Amino acid sequence: MMMHPQDSLTHVRILIACPDQPGIVAAVASALYGIGANITESAQHTTDPSGGAFFMRIACYIPSYREVTASDEASDVETSLFEAFRPLVNRFAIRYELSFGHQRQQMAIFVSREDHCLVELLWQRQNDALLADIAMVISNHETHRATVERLGIPFHYTPISADTKTAVESRQLNLLDGRADFLVLARYMQVLSPRMIAAFPNRIINIHHSFLPAFSGAKPYERAFARGVKIIGATAHYVTEELDAGPIIEQDVLRIDHGYTAADMRRVGRQIERTVLARAVQWHIEGRILVHANKTIVFP
Amino acid sequence: MMMHPQDSLTHVRILIACPDQPGIVAAVASALYGIGANITESAQHTTDPSGGAFFMRIACYIPSYREVTASDEASDVETSLFEAFRPLVNRFAIRYELSFGHQRQQMAIFVSREDHCLVELLWQRQNDALLADIAMVISNHETHRATVERLGIPFHYTPISADTKTAVESRQLNLLDGRADFLVLARYMQVLSPRMIAAFPNRIINIHHSFLPAFSGAKPYERAFARGVKIIGATAHYVTEELDAGPIIEQDVLRIDHGYTAADMRRVGRQIERTVLARAVQWHIEGRILVHANKTIVFP
Amino acid sequence: MMMHPQDSLTHVRILIACPDQPGIVAAVASALYGIGANITESAQHTTDPSGGAFFMRIACYIPSYREVTASDEASDVETSLFEAFRPLVNRFAIRYELSFGHQRQQMAIFVSREDHCLVELLWQRQNDALLADIAMVISNHETHRATVERLGIPFHYTPISADTKTAVESRQLNLLDGRADFLVLARYMQVLSPRMIAAFPNRIINIHHSFLPAFSGAKPYERAFARGVKIIGATAHYVTEELDAGPIIEQDVLRIDHGYTAADMRRVGRQIERTVLARAVQWHIEGRILVHANKTIVFP
Amino acid sequence: MMMHPQDSLTHVRILIACPDQPGIVAAVASALYGIGANITESAQHTTDPSGGAFFMRIACYIPSYREVTASDEASDVETSLFEAFRPLVNRFAIRYELSFGHQRQQMAIFVSREDHCLVELLWQRQNDALLADIAMVISNHETHRATVERLGIPFHYTPISADTKTAVESRQLNLLDGRADFLVLARYMQVLSPRMIAAFPNRIINIHHSFLPAFSGAKPYERAFARGVKIIGATAHYVTEELDAGPIIEQDVLRIDHGYTAADMRRVGRQIERTVLARAVQWHIEGRILVHANKTIVFP
Repeated sequence: MMMHPQDSLTHVRILIACPDQPGIVAAVASALYGIGANITESAQHTTDPSGGAFFMRIACYIPSYREVTASDEASDVETSLFEAFRPLVNRFAIRYELSFGHQRQQMAIFVSREDHCLVELLWQRQNDALLADIAMVISNHETHRATVERLGIPFHYTPISADTKTAVESRQLNLLDGRADFLVLARYMQVLSPRMIAAFPNRIINIHHSFLPAFSGAKPYERAFARGVKIIGATAHYVTEELDAGPIIEQDVLRIDHGYTAADMRRVGRQIERTVLARAVQWHIEGRILVHANKTIVFP
Repeated sequence: MMMHPQDSLTHVRILIACPDQPGIVAAVASALYGIGANITESAQHTTDPSGGAFFMRIACYIPSYREVTASDEASDVETSLFEAFRPLVNRFAIRYELSFGHQRQQMAIFVSREDHCLVELLWQRQNDALLADIAMVISNHETHRATVERLGIPFHYTPISADTKTAVESRQLNLLDGRADFLVLARYMQVLSPRMIAAFPNRIINIHHSFLPAFSGAKPYERAFARGVKIIGATAHYVTEELDAGPIIEQDVLRIDHGYTAADMRRVGRQIERTVLARAVQWHIEGRILVHANKTIVFP
Repeated sequence: MMMHPQDSLTHVRILIACPDQPGIVAAVASALYGIGANITESAQHTTDPSGGAFFMRIACYIPSYREVTASDEASDVETSLFEAFRPLVNRFAIRYELSFGHQRQQMAIFVSREDHCLVELLWQRQNDALLADIAMVISNHETHRATVERLGIPFHYTPISADTKTAVESRQLNLLDGRADFLVLARYMQVLSPRMIAAFPNRIINIHHSFLPAFSGAKPYERAFARGVKIIGATAHYVTEELDAGPIIEQDVLRIDHGYTAADMRRVGRQIERTVLARAVQWHIEGRILVHANKTIVFP
Repeated sequence: MMMHPQDSLTHVRILIACPDQPGIVAAVASALYGIGANITESAQHTTDPSGGAFFMRIACYIPSYREVTASDEASDVETSLFEAFRPLVNRFAIRYELSFGHQRQQMAIFVSREDHCLVELLWQRQNDALLADIAMVISNHETHRATVERLGIPFHYTPISADTKTAVESRQLNLLDGRADFLVLARYMQVLSPRMIAAFPNRIINIHHSFLPAFSGAKPYERAFARGVKIIGATAHYVTEELDAGPIIEQDVLRIDHGYTAADMRRVGRQIERTVLARAVQWHIEGRILVHANKTIVFP
């Protein structure tokens, strides 16, 4: 494919899933080559070479032929990809998902009183370590309004109780509608309703302050103290209807000893909670995560 | 205290437990100084400075006044310590446990088919990394007889089934009687009866191939695979009547990813199982571990 | 020792160093018991039981007899300790250093353009994870003035060049005089002069963005990239005249792979730099660190 | 491609290197599809998408058309691959390396007195964790003859000194000729001559007991002790003429504290030395490692 002087390059990330069979990689790579793509990253995973499921992530640069405007460019390349992949959909039953480097995803952060995860995401965003926009912060407490608004990010105070839950979630869904691609629960101490979860399938990232499945549910540090574990952890996962049982995205741990109280664990645990959450958010933004059978494939 | 030319030094490790109150450290240190001890290591732990429990570990060298013979020397220093500590027992209600550097503890290793933990303990023993003697290896399989006997260590084959359990454990207890100070379950795939456990309270070390309390019970790697965790672990703990619920001595973990099958986890998990078990055994031998409220204090 | 109703408890941390010999622990513990101290933490280290150096850290609560005022109380307990330790100074040649829980240490933070370490220290201070006051922030750039002043912390802009170095350091020393107990170089891209270092011996903590002694000096990530290491690290150390060669306080590492550019390392390395620096600062504040022979003893 | 009933599958691993340009992945995948390959693993790395070097690893199953015999099968599939890749060699200037799952590589282990790395490799080989054959063990000491010969592995005693070096290396090269695909220096305390290194380019794996480039050369633990580091490490690398400066394959680390003597470091360091070396050997066997610009690309 010839590049014309006016061509520009669009960075595209493609996630692919289909039943495994020979020829997929060749067909996908050829289709991409046909529209001039230069593949810079590719990784694949097969649950079982005979009769399993096949997953693939490709990052590539695709030349765009028309003059570039934010909206045009995407549709130009998107159209090429759509045409190029149509035969693959028929032949291999592939499903694919595209994300474009120049289209920043919008995230909404939910937070309660503890601020370490919020502060981390704000700081990483300020330093361009997270390539997404923070569309809004939603909280059931006013505590962090100043911190958030100072950065020019909308802050919505949505106090919630058992009685008001349905109404408040409706308001939250209105706020999010069309403005957020995914949600991050940055130590948000409320359980989301199935309706909320269904609105963002595999698009709500929660941080749990234990090494799941150990100590799922409430007060994990207190229970870790009671059990006398020598290592504590944190787990970022997608939220599903079953509490703390969604697909695990990332985990990390920290060594402790008999001298740690539950309060000490809570204090040092914040370091891994924020780091693990930020890594999960980054991978989500970079389109590295596929969910299959309540587990994640995280492409390197 | 003057050292006479014929004096020799005995290395003693002392574990102390009592209700916390001011003056304990001073009293213990003074008592030891009174019999000429040079303290080389000391560490303490208080569950709560007002009204909690106090724990201490001291390692010291104590001169012995009589000519040294393996049995005499111990009793000589032991007697001094007994006299020196008597007032403390009355005043502070301290309980203490002594172990002597020159008296090697005797351990019995229980193993089934998988050999990685056994091989590790044998190799560490051969290389003087574990300062205890392996009094015997007991197994419900003949698999490792040659490996064990080649090193001059007695190997006892004790096949076991639900029907023969009581009888076989009686035979095992006979074998152990007077010959083993503590037991190491180096991937021994049998559940010990309460009678067996009672015979070695806080003296049976088991290795469990998961990051307890996650995946306690059978087939932890299969369940870790099913849950999609990103980190696997191993846990060494003292055996109590409740399965996999005894005081945790040591844990360690290993990062995995979506590409690991349960079999892969089993393979790489062996590296942490053997290392974690060997560390726990070493700390037990060095008298670093106190059990309190189903948790361990592991003195550094 | 009787406690009178008006007595209050002062938390004291004591670091002790002297030539090793029998009786030190007993003498120190007895002296402390004599003034009513309740020892809550103690740890010791000997470089060599025969003829080596002995080091000890004790944390305790000591009752104070006079009415408490911020200045009185310290001198009250300080006087008791001074009297109690005088015989030990003579007998064992001990040197000791005291710090009091109620006397917050004052730290001055030096920073250049990169803010991750500064932000971490400010956030930890805001959340009472660091029990010291930030007396001032000194920078050769104006970049972080707003961030710092918003929290009510004085910010001093001290641009510096080879020509102005002596004068600027004099101004910095004036700013610090009587206001800072120790300095933290939170990614401060200037080499301190011997005069500055001599003013705060073992009281200037620097963070170096490599796993020292690998890649000491400039551009460690670029050199780590060139060498192809598989793990990168960060090192907090006390500043001495020899660049990057002072006593190491803490280190930590992070696994990377062949896909990381030097820029990627710089980005992810920030996570360990800030964590390692914050840990070192905390240990310094808690009086856990002794320097001996250009190495640190960090008491647990 | 049709599979006939008599077809069998050959597991092939392919390492590819060439200048980066669009179309490589498509061309390689299509070529493989053309000979009926089912790709089960693929990974790629580009040093720079414009004008950099491109590297790829593919693992696949390729049907073989003739009746299978150990020698025939390889040449059958090898011929297909040779034909399929010929156009790629011309078009993209690719270089490629093949290894076949059914052809076990032959490794020769060099060892001196310390046995922990040797024991680890022998144990992993016995347990089928390392899919290569140990063709021989060569040592400048007789120490481990019995351990090695008991497993039916040839042991060659080749004492060596400055005077005899050339002659002894000639003898070693004779022993290795046609019998070893790669060498593992499992704590072999001799520096190989350039001639020896040239005979096995990027095929000699050494384990160095430090976190290179820190403490390259002799006595790393002693120097780590002197420097007061808080973490020690081990490094597996390919041997080049410059001592301890070859491409790093794998590193790992272990936390220590001020209480560790150099002897303690040596003892615990063995755990990481053997683990790091075994991982490097395994990756080498699985054809995961490419060397470029004195660095390794290790495909996941």
